[in-house]
Amino acid sequence: MDFDAMFEAQLDSLREEGNYRVFAELERRCGAFPKARSHDDDAPDEVTVWCSNDYLGMGQHPVVREAMKTAVDQCGTGAGGTRNISGTNCHHIALERELSDLHGKEDALLFTSGYVSNWAALSTLGSRLPDAVILSDEANHASMIEGIRHSRAQKVIWRHNDAADLDRKLAALPANTPKIVAFESVYSMDGDICPMDEIVEVAERHGAMTYLDEVHAVGLYGPRGGGVSEARGLADRITLIEGTLGKAYGCMGGYVTGSASLCDFIRSFASGFIFTTALPPAVAAAATASIRHLKQSDTERQAQRAQVARLRARLDAQGIPHLMNDSHIIPVMIKDPVKCRVLADILMRDHGIYVQPINYPTVPKGTERLRFTPGPLHGDADIDHLVAALAALWKQCALAHAVA
Amino acid sequence: MDFDAMFEAQLDSLREEGNYRVFAELERRCGAFPKARSHDDDAPDEVTVWCSNDYLGMGQHPVVREAMKTAVDQCGTGAGGTRNISGTNCHHIALERELSDLHGKEDALLFTSGYVSNWAALSTLGSRLPDAVILSDEANHASMIEGIRHSRAQKVIWRHNDAADLDRKLAALPANTPKIVAFESVYSMDGDICPMDEIVEVAERHGAMTYLDEVHAVGLYGPRGGGVSEARGLADRITLIEGTLGKAYGCMGGYVTGSASLCDFIRSFASGFIFTTALPPAVAAAATASIRHLKQSDTERQAQRAQVARLRARLDAQGIPHLMNDSHIIPVMIKDPVKCRVLADILMRDHGIYVQPINYPTVPKGTERLRFTPGPLHGDADIDHLVAALAALWKQCALAHAVA
Repeated sequence: MDFDAMFEAQLDSLREEGNYRVFAELERRCGAFPKARSHDDDAPDEVTVWCSNDYLGMGQHPVVREAMKTAVDQCGTGAGGTRNISGTNCHHIALERELSDLHGKEDALLFTSGYVSNWAALSTLGSRLPDAVILSDEANHASMIEGIRHSRAQKVIWRHNDAADLDRKLAALPANTPKIVAFESVYSMDGDICPMDEIVEVAERHGAMTYLDEVHAVGLYGPRGGGVSEARGLADRITLIEGTLGKAYGCMGGYVTGSASLCDFIRSFASGFIFTTALPPAVAAAATASIRHLKQSDTERQAQRAQVARLRARLDAQGIPHLMNDSHIIPVMIKDPVKCRVLADILMRDHGIYVQPINYPTVPKGTERLRFTPGPLHGDADIDHLVAALAALWKQCALAHAVA
Repeated sequence: MDFDAMFEAQLDSLREEGNYRVFAELERRCGAFPKARSHDDDAPDEVTVWCSNDYLGMGQHPVVREAMKTAVDQCGTGAGGTRNISGTNCHHIALERELSDLHGKEDALLFTSGYVSNWAALSTLGSRLPDAVILSDEANHASMIEGIRHSRAQKVIWRHNDAADLDRKLAALPANTPKIVAFESVYSMDGDICPMDEIVEVAERHGAMTYLDEVHAVGLYGPRGGGVSEARGLADRITLIEGTLGKAYGCMGGYVTGSASLCDFIRSFASGFIFTTALPPAVAAAATASIRHLKQSDTERQAQRAQVARLRARLDAQGIPHLMNDSHIIPVMIKDPVKCRVLADILMRDHGIYVQPINYPTVPKGTERLRFTPGPLHGDADIDHLVAALAALWKQCALAHAVA
C-alpha cells in the first residue's frame, strides 16, 4: 500500500487551498529581542519578530536565564523520569508552590505544556466524574476541544462569550448532573476578553464547576500577573485556573491550579500527567524566576500596554483596519489564505518584518489574518517601520481599507 | 455540588488499594549522578537513584550541559511560539536533521514529549487515513493507547510480541484497508525486546505500515544509539520510528522519523503538534549534543551493560528473583502494591536507596514491582550496597524467594 501517496494527496489539498504551512526558521537573538536572525534564503539576515507569544520578552531576561543555567549545573539537563518514577525535583515543587500562590489556590499541578494541561485535565474530569457534562465556549482552544472529545463526556457548546446562552444551556440540564463550564479569559486569535463576572455568576447559580484557561493572560494582567481573574478579583470564585509558562513567562510548560483535592485527583488519574517525563528542572527554575519577577514588577506590563496603544493609534491614523479588543493582541484581518501569505512574505522579504500569516486550522477559513503582538521591547522606531510598511502595502495592493 | 467530595471519594479508593502515589522529592546532584539530595523528611539527605530513565547519565554530561547553557544565552529560555507562529528556531531544525540521520530516514518531526509524539502521530494517522485499522501490541504504552483511542480508528489488539498472532489478525482484514502495526522495541516495565524481524516480515507481507516506539532503546542500542532497529539492521524497513529525548539522551521531548511525506503529513494535521509551544531551543540544542555524543561514543553503553550484568549476577547469587530479559531493565517482582511500597520505603529510609514502587496503572494490578535501571554511573560499591540491603530485606520479610 502506497502510504506516501495517500499523505501527499491530503497535503496537495492543503496546498491548493493556500493552507499549506511553511515555518520561518529563526535564531532569536538573546539580548536583542525582538530581533532575530533569519535562516531562510528569501528573508534578510535580521528580522523583527512581531508575532511572538513571549509577550514581555521574559525569555531573554537575565534573571530567568541565570535561573535556568544555574539549575542546569545543579541538577542537569533533564528530569530523568516521570513525576512518579524519580522525576520529581525540588524545582518542580517550588514552581507548583509559586503557581498556587499566584492564583491564590491550595495547590497546583505542572504539565509538560499548556496543551497537555488542558487535554489531560478536561479529559480526566469529563471521563471520571460520573455523567459529567462539559459546557464549552464555542471559541475554545484546540487543546480544550481535544480534551473534551477524549473524555467522551456529553458536550454542550455555548455561544462565544455569551453568558445568557450559557445560562439557558445550564438550565436545560438536570440539577444533580456534574457540570463543567470551560472557557478562556483572553481568546488568542481575536484578542477579546470574556465577561468573566457574568460567566462565574451563571455557573455558581447552577452549581457548575468553572474551568478557566488563562494562557494568554498570565503574567500580563492583574497586579501580580495572575491573569484576568486576578485583575477582576474573581480568582477565588473560579474552580480551576489553567495557565502556561510558555508565553508571557518565556519558558515552557503548563499547569492547573485549584483545590488540593482537585489537583490530587488530576495528578492521580490523568494519563497525560502520569505517563510522561517531567519538565527539565532547569525549565521549572527559569519559570519560577520569571513568575517571581512579574509578581513584583509592573514595568514590563506598562511598557507593553504603551506599545500596544501606540501601534493601534498609528494603524488608525493610516486607516489600516484592525479588530478592536481590550487585550494586547492586534489582529489585522485579511480574510484570504493566499493574500495573507503574500502580504506576510513581502513584509518579511522587503521589510524584515516577521509576522506569520494565520490560517486554517488555527482560525476558521475566511478569517485569515496577520496577528501582531507588540511588547515592551518593540521600540517606537520598530512601530514606525511596521506601520510605514503596512501603509505602503495597503496602497500598493489596493486592499479595501474596510476589510475588517 | 461538592466536587471536592467526589474527588476525595475516588482518591480514597486508590488509598485503600495501596495505589495512591507519593512522589519522592529529589534534587539530583549534577556531577555526582546517580546521587541525589532527598527533600523528604523520612529519607536520608543523600540517596542513590536506582530507577531513573536517564539511563546513561547524559543529563549531567558536560557537553550536554554546555550546549544547553550556550543556547540559553544565544536564544533565550523559551521558543516564544508554536512551530508555525514564530517558534521554529535553528536549534529545532538542527535537531530534526540529527534525528533523521540517526535513524536513516528522510525527515523527522519534534514534539514536546514522547507521550505527545505517540498520541499525536497515532491519532492523526488513525483518523485521517480512510478506514485505517491500527493493530496494537497488547502491552503498548499508555500514550499509544490514548492516541489510538483518540483516532477512533478500528483497533485490533494482538498478543504481546506474538508475530504469528499479528499475522492471523492482519490476514483477517481486507487487503485494501490501510493497516498500521504499532509496537515497541523495549517494553519498559518487563524489559523484554520484541521479535522485530518477525513483526516486520509479517507487516510487509500484508502491506501494513510499521509504527515502532523506541523510547527505551534510543541512545542505548545500535552502534550509533539508533535503537534496536539499528542494532538489528531493520531501521530501513520500519515506516515510522518514534523516540524520546527525555530518557537516554537526558533532556526532554519526543519525535517521529520517517519519509518526508509522512513527517509533513503529521506536521500539517496533528493537533498536538500544531497548537503547542515549541520546545525551548536550549533543550533542542542539549538533545542534539547528547545524540551526537552517543553516535560517536560507545563507552557509556558498554559501562551500562557491564553494570546491568553485574547487578543481575549479584541478585542471582543472593537468590533474589528478577525477570530475565535482553535489556537494561531489571524488574524484581513483588506482586502486591502495599508490600511493594513498604519495601521501597525501607530501602529509602534505612539504606538511602531510592527505587520507586511501580504499581497500577503503570503495571497491571498483581504485578507490582521494584524496577532497577543500573547505569554507567552506578559504581560496584553502589551495587554491593543495593544487593546487601535487598538480601537483608528478603530474609527479614520472609518474602518467598520464588515470587517471580
